[in-house]
Amino acid sequence: MRLYNSPVSGNCYKVRLLCAQLGIPLELIDLDVVDRSNRPQLIGDLNPALRVPTIVLDDGRPLPESNAIIDHLAEGTPYMPADSYERAQVLAWQFFEQYEIEPNLAVMRFFKLFGISPSEEGEASRRSAGTRALQALERGLTDRTFLVAERYSVADISLYGYTHVAHEGGFDITPYPAIRGWIERVAAQPGHIRIDD
Amino acid sequence: MRLYNSPVSGNCYKVRLLCAQLGIPLELIDLDVVDRSNRPQLIGDLNPALRVPTIVLDDGRPLPESNAIIDHLAEGTPYMPADSYERAQVLAWQFFEQYEIEPNLAVMRFFKLFGISPSEEGEASRRSAGTRALQALERGLTDRTFLVAERYSVADISLYGYTHVAHEGGFDITPYPAIRGWIERVAAQPGHIRIDD
Repeated sequence: MRLYNSPVSGNCYKVRLLCAQLGIPLELIDLDVVDRSNRPQLIGDLNPALRVPTIVLDDGRPLPESNAIIDHLAEGTPYMPADSYERAQVLAWQFFEQYEIEPNLAVMRFFKLFGISPSEEGEASRRSAGTRALQALERGLTDRTFLVAERYSVADISLYGYTHVAHEGGFDITPYPAIRGWIERVAAQPGHIRIDD
Repeated sequence: MRLYNSPVSGNCYKVRLLCAQLGIPLELIDLDVVDRSNRPQLIGDLNPALRVPTIVLDDGRPLPESNAIIDHLAEGTPYMPADSYERAQVLAWQFFEQYEIEPNLAVMRFFKLFGISPSEEGEASRRSAGTRALQALERGLTDRTFLVAERYSVADISLYGYTHVAHEGGFDITPYPAIRGWIERVAAQPGHIRIDD
């Protein structure tokens, strides 16, 4: 299976992490995340949004969007619940992740990693929205071991992707004990790899 | 089934539209989308992110996030494909919708509906990201009848939610013939209701 990848992207890391845990070998093709001018040539036919991660399955069919990819690969494994309500809860957390975590925690981290200075207004807006997202995640994890059904699943992989590197975007997770405990539990799962592995 | 709703929200409209097409009666509870101060009391136990739509199923279990809700309700109906790759494509479009369409088209529309003036920089940023999202959707719909497997599905309901009211946020869809044709096809589906019905 081919993965159009970025080594620093938390979205791509979700795919690498699940594949490591499932024992799926990946052919990685790293794309530049700053200069995106060659993307129409490289992945234009695979993903109209021109983003990574995009995978090409062994039968040649493409699939974009980190959470759609990991849910597809996890189907029928212990990482995706079989119960329909639990599956819906997995999706609910993943949509929360793409709407509330990613645009704030991931984008602030991207700015810092690549030395980009956002406007004061832009930074303040992402800072407060990211903080609200962390508060929501803390409420969701309070008195829970994992996000859904007390078992490690693709929901945890999704949310872990950017939350565990929140500090690299200037977000302090010290005030969130439920998140901190959960990060430790996710990192202790069999087959875990780090984002920089 | 109870729906914590906003009449103007495209995210809530997705749920009302699918439920109309499935013949599921809804008890609507409208929440204020500007003054959100009472949300912890109203839906704090149902959705840690405190957003609408949030549903409460007949057995009392809650479910947040528009796309997670419609996917759950569509399971086993013609609106959700049975094939695993087609299901993954539905999800890929829905994650694209929450990440690229909603924060730009929906937020600009919200500002206009409620007379909020974004900063020049904030508006320019959402304007260009929203235009890129429409271009990606246009590429995805070119030579296709519907988004996935040439059949109307929850993917179309998701993307239609805010795309068909793009003009209310100042986005002109005239340059996108594939989107315009698709909007007409979605609106012509049996059981269709309008966002203001």
